[in-house]
Amino acid sequence: MSTETGTSSGPELLLDLNRDVRRPLRAQLEDGLREAVRSGRLPAHIRLPATRALASDLGVSRRLVVDAYGQLLAEGYLVARRGAGTFVADAAGASAAAAAETPPSVPTFDFFPGFPDLANFPRNAWLRALRATLRDAPDRAFGYPDPRGALELRRALAGHLRRVRGVVADPETIVVCSGAAQGFFLLARALGGGRLAVEDPGLPAHRAILAEASAQLVALPVDEGGACVAELDALSAREGTIDAVLVTPAHQSPTGVALAPPRRAALLAWAGENEGLVIEDDYDAEYRYDRAPLGAMQGLAADRVVYVGTVSKTLAPALRLGWLVLPPRLLERVVSAKLLADHGCPTIDQLALAQLIDSGAYDRHLRQARRRYRARRDALVHAVARHLPNARVTGLAAGLHAVVRLGRPVDGMALMQAAARQSVGVYPLGYAYMDVRAVDDGLVLGYANLAEPAIEEGIRRLGAVLEEL
Amino acid sequence: MSTETGTSSGPELLLDLNRDVRRPLRAQLEDGLREAVRSGRLPAHIRLPATRALASDLGVSRRLVVDAYGQLLAEGYLVARRGAGTFVADAAGASAAAAAETPPSVPTFDFFPGFPDLANFPRNAWLRALRATLRDAPDRAFGYPDPRGALELRRALAGHLRRVRGVVADPETIVVCSGAAQGFFLLARALGGGRLAVEDPGLPAHRAILAEASAQLVALPVDEGGACVAELDALSAREGTIDAVLVTPAHQSPTGVALAPPRRAALLAWAGENEGLVIEDDYDAEYRYDRAPLGAMQGLAADRVVYVGTVSKTLAPALRLGWLVLPPRLLERVVSAKLLADHGCPTIDQLALAQLIDSGAYDRHLRQARRRYRARRDALVHAVARHLPNARVTGLAAGLHAVVRLGRPVDGMALMQAAARQSVGVYPLGYAYMDVRAVDDGLVLGYANLAEPAIEEGIRRLGAVLEEL
Repeated sequence: MSTETGTSSGPELLLDLNRDVRRPLRAQLEDGLREAVRSGRLPAHIRLPATRALASDLGVSRRLVVDAYGQLLAEGYLVARRGAGTFVADAAGASAAAAAETPPSVPTFDFFPGFPDLANFPRNAWLRALRATLRDAPDRAFGYPDPRGALELRRALAGHLRRVRGVVADPETIVVCSGAAQGFFLLARALGGGRLAVEDPGLPAHRAILAEASAQLVALPVDEGGACVAELDALSAREGTIDAVLVTPAHQSPTGVALAPPRRAALLAWAGENEGLVIEDDYDAEYRYDRAPLGAMQGLAADRVVYVGTVSKTLAPALRLGWLVLPPRLLERVVSAKLLADHGCPTIDQLALAQLIDSGAYDRHLRQARRRYRARRDALVHAVARHLPNARVTGLAAGLHAVVRLGRPVDGMALMQAAARQSVGVYPLGYAYMDVRAVDDGLVLGYANLAEPAIEEGIRRLGAVLEEL
Repeated sequence: MSTETGTSSGPELLLDLNRDVRRPLRAQLEDGLREAVRSGRLPAHIRLPATRALASDLGVSRRLVVDAYGQLLAEGYLVARRGAGTFVADAAGASAAAAAETPPSVPTFDFFPGFPDLANFPRNAWLRALRATLRDAPDRAFGYPDPRGALELRRALAGHLRRVRGVVADPETIVVCSGAAQGFFLLARALGGGRLAVEDPGLPAHRAILAEASAQLVALPVDEGGACVAELDALSAREGTIDAVLVTPAHQSPTGVALAPPRRAALLAWAGENEGLVIEDDYDAEYRYDRAPLGAMQGLAADRVVYVGTVSKTLAPALRLGWLVLPPRLLERVVSAKLLADHGCPTIDQLALAQLIDSGAYDRHLRQARRRYRARRDALVHAVARHLPNARVTGLAAGLHAVVRLGRPVDGMALMQAAARQSVGVYPLGYAYMDVRAVDDGLVLGYANLAEPAIEEGIRRLGAVLEEL
């Protein structure tokens, strides 16, 4: 098959897929490819087999191979060249191995979309909350946690979410988890390998978590009105019954649009008619700069919507605290999955967060952060207007990131590498698609973790890089 | 089948097992039984089908049914009566539902084996470590954690484990996890559904985690010399190739014996000859009262042994911090599983633990706790001699719990219930077996979380309860 696929190494060299072990085939394929690159068995610059050919040789679906290539493209092991195919990246073996040993060097002007302002973490308020917790907590708080989460935190969250997001929240239906990431993991376990429609583009990291936890993923396209909910019936007909739909209605991740109100209604109607579940990832709804955000969809149909929230965008990803507000019928399965995953989240941190919310310090921090991020978004809009004349910032005035349309398609990997040489970190929108688009006109740029002068300078450098490309 | 099995409800009423969803059949069976008890469909006092009959009706293995019954016996939904069968517990429906709503009332004299002295958590030292962390940590520490764990903590642990337990530990081969519980989960995922021999008796909670993560469990008997390692070959021949063996060599959980030195050697030889993996759960080896403990087995064969540790017994289960020291070949798969489970453990807590270890406060706390627990163990031994004339305390002078042999078999559930009425919490050894022994002469009694007068009074009350039984 080597001539047919354009690589000198047959797939038996690349891969050792084993259907008897329970590790998903996609993960096995990715492991095998990474290992082959690292060990040098697949040297730099060699072309990989076409996805269709490799899929056929291995007897797996082409989607599985496409996804595995996409993951390794995103990780930098592979490079896609338009019209030419997929290649092992330049010195990927050496650099990947080195990256595993030493902390990665972070670009000075890093527009990573996942961060709040890390310098603005409320260290003193958090320490005060910890001090109060360690002073007041009863001894039993140091035993095994309640797998649902500390009751004090579930109460504080219920009040906060009712007030701020219109969530129908009862402490008894909340489960505290290690960030939204674990929330998705627990949901996928509770759904027991069901079929899940996810927004496309969406977050590859979340898709990987859901797939690892046995969910079968189906791509739901996204346009200016958000997830194309009207396609759910056609998707079901083509792919099989869809059990749940994961959406980011307040601020689509990553395109930044809102789910149009008629689509919100249509999605809830779909859930009602099909006994389907809607998973509402409300990851950054605390930040809306032009007007008050719409309330959470969960408030309209608490029996059909799971609400997912996190402190990763409001305080810090390092805290690893998130929450699910669940329809009662899912509660026991999710709690059981949490118990079997890690016995529950650390109690002291949970009590400190409850203290932070109850004392009003959390709201104060949010108000201050909202002003700060609004100014940073304005700085991004101005810098783009000044330095990227053909580009425009799209999406709502909301959240911690924006999608910038460059006005012409660019090779994402080439742009990332050229920008990195100028100490600028940029994130191509093309990698957020399930079928990775190596060449695309979108960039996902986080602005919350950069001061205004850094935003200005980073975009200026990006402009220079784009001119040379 | 109703006359044959002695219950008026056929299994189609009890259960709705679905082989198409990926939730394990055992979990489905347990869910179905719990739900039937809670809803009253299976009323109190009714006899359940014999395990063999139900297994045959459902077309599942008898082991699966035995395990599910065992789990629900341990949870209190069911009661076993010697020679008569398994019954729905008295008012289990009402009490289980009530227990889900309100915090369970803890008996005053609770000999729960899983706790260190919760009143002795070093609140001030921990707050000092948190304060130093929040003062000194760079901003980037508030971003997403390193999925392997904070480098500072991995370094501190490597030094501590080398020094205290003779572990061959390198920061690069350590993965920090949410307690040993998540460590087992990650290992089972990394082993991809392999066959795992576990000590029998062992910890039901750990078996449940491993099974949920797709490990196939095989029972390895335990005697006075610890795990019966010589039986591994026969087990392999009968059950299929064993991929890994989980042992607690320093202090068998729960029987409290040490793995005899010739067996340590034999186990390592088995691993070498069979390319097998040994998982060394070193959960409480910090506490040995009569002499210095043997070093960790991992120190002898770091390429074949995974070392598992935790702060749950040294500081508090509430912190949810544990660690794996891994053979390099397992590292990538475990880190990948951790990344996909929750993106990593909370960074601030990890840095605080590193600070606690590096400052010497952790060692000081351990020395003080060792003196305290030794006195409590002595109090238990004396109280048993005084109030339980036919009983004896077995196992090493080590750890936080002991097995007391009562000198005659008792019905575990009846004893637990009678003791609970006297505010005494006791834990029958019979529930630690894979084939639950409803009637057995052993109790697993934790003494670390009770002051000496409470140990004396608790055992006095237990003696009175046993006389009446």
